[in-house]
Amino acid sequence: MPKVLILSKKADEYRELVEEARLPDLELVATSDTAEALEKGVDCEIVFGEPSLIPEVLPALTNLRWVQAMWAGVEPLLDPSLRRDYTLTNARGIFGGLMSEYVFGYLLTHERRVMELFQSQLERRWEPVSTGTLRGKTIGLLGVGSIGAHLAGTAKHFGITVRGYTRASETCPDVDSYYHGENLLDFATGLDYLVSVLPNTVETRQIVDKSLLTVLPPHAIFVNVGRGSAVDESALVDALNSKQIAGAVLDVFKTEPLPEDSLFWDLPNVYITYHTSARTVPTDMMSVFVENYMRFVRGETLKYMVDFELGY
Amino acid sequence: MPKVLILSKKADEYRELVEEARLPDLELVATSDTAEALEKGVDCEIVFGEPSLIPEVLPALTNLRWVQAMWAGVEPLLDPSLRRDYTLTNARGIFGGLMSEYVFGYLLTHERRVMELFQSQLERRWEPVSTGTLRGKTIGLLGVGSIGAHLAGTAKHFGITVRGYTRASETCPDVDSYYHGENLLDFATGLDYLVSVLPNTVETRQIVDKSLLTVLPPHAIFVNVGRGSAVDESALVDALNSKQIAGAVLDVFKTEPLPEDSLFWDLPNVYITYHTSARTVPTDMMSVFVENYMRFVRGETLKYMVDFELGY
Repeated sequence: MPKVLILSKKADEYRELVEEARLPDLELVATSDTAEALEKGVDCEIVFGEPSLIPEVLPALTNLRWVQAMWAGVEPLLDPSLRRDYTLTNARGIFGGLMSEYVFGYLLTHERRVMELFQSQLERRWEPVSTGTLRGKTIGLLGVGSIGAHLAGTAKHFGITVRGYTRASETCPDVDSYYHGENLLDFATGLDYLVSVLPNTVETRQIVDKSLLTVLPPHAIFVNVGRGSAVDESALVDALNSKQIAGAVLDVFKTEPLPEDSLFWDLPNVYITYHTSARTVPTDMMSVFVENYMRFVRGETLKYMVDFELGY
Repeated sequence: MPKVLILSKKADEYRELVEEARLPDLELVATSDTAEALEKGVDCEIVFGEPSLIPEVLPALTNLRWVQAMWAGVEPLLDPSLRRDYTLTNARGIFGGLMSEYVFGYLLTHERRVMELFQSQLERRWEPVSTGTLRGKTIGLLGVGSIGAHLAGTAKHFGITVRGYTRASETCPDVDSYYHGENLLDFATGLDYLVSVLPNTVETRQIVDKSLLTVLPPHAIFVNVGRGSAVDESALVDALNSKQIAGAVLDVFKTEPLPEDSLFWDLPNVYITYHTSARTVPTDMMSVFVENYMRFVRGETLKYMVDFELGY
């Protein structure tokens, strides 16, 4: 009977969901407290939890075989000093819809001039001005995994041309043209919208740098829903200050929470959000865990396995 | 050789577009001035223009056979005192994308709390709060023509259940359930979002009244991108003031421009725009005109014919 340790700030909610799911042969410990986790769950084979909480208990878990992370990003578990003698799976396939809502919500806010029209409203000014449109624009997706694929589908729905920049994959039918490796600047040249969905890996660090920002047109909008590490933040501040690009929508930063003295707070053409573009919905997360748990007890290969070297 | 009168505030732009289209056998007069229209185009067979400008010249046009309106709404041409001895076609099939951008842009602004998160940003406050989502919600479309059908498709893309209220038609595959006639309150009961795309006709007047607003839940949002006449505006103000519904997004009003003393300006839970949800894009409008012109010269039935009695 596999013993499962739920280690999450929402331990009670996940405990209820796992109990309701009536998974076969399962012994359960659920806590948000790492001390309690070590006391009651040290002999677990499976951890289902938040990557931020797991490193503290990881060395002590004598029977560990599998960790199902509740996030897409698993950086806390990739530190080279941590053990890697278990199967790590992350959350995939459940964030695309929320990410599409975020990205296109903000792109529409920009194009349809929601803030400016609201200002006219506050001034009781009937202002029948034309607004922009998504249709006919070109979006560039840095990273086309399950999230990028959903963004591509939403873009096509709105009549947007889609470019994708990936390591090698070319599997998403909604991407009109793919770019890899050295073709990064070709990929970015002339984009109306540049969206990074990249995870934090050695290869993605500072990929959005001065040279890339330079080839974007002055009306371009940069959106970051991946990781802050993908951006040379001082180059981005420069590009925004000098109006080399028109604006940015930033949900992730190198340091989070964003420090109070960050230059980003002062830029007029930036929307800042708080790593809230796609928070894990427990019922969604459960569907991933249940599917993988059934695979685990049947001895099958798990879905969404993370390559410790690649980092995703 | 058919003589075409272009009567539009954008007469020069449309003249160029018509000339570029190289339509066969066409004599062209283009003006934004009704006096000039009468002087040079009184013998035209075809008028391609804005419904607001046409009534003034309409009685004098001795050879008139067809009017292609540049708007979806043709109220100015429906006055019973005006002649109806010609074929009237309106603009259709070109507003759906823009309307989807508008409606879902504002619904996302609401659900994703764009304004509140921006307020935190102004206060340099890292505020990792959860936001809402479109997914799993239910939208009700009052009117499912070509615009409503596009809204339905966008709703499905975002995981929203779609109800449609129509006179009789049930042709849109993206509508999950249809309602007609007396079933208006069943249609509206429990909707998260109510969107009116209705034209101004005898049957649609004040259809959004107190009884309909009463069956919406307190978190409901009402969006009007059709015509102001479909709404009992004082009932709507009451519903918003008493928080019977959560908010409204209003692009059209009984009186436009919205009078300075309108109560709508003072409501905190309303977005007002200025009949700007989907302005006619001349290149889009040309595609409608070109298709219908070719049908006209070939003696075929025109597309998008308006029934003067129905009003659309």
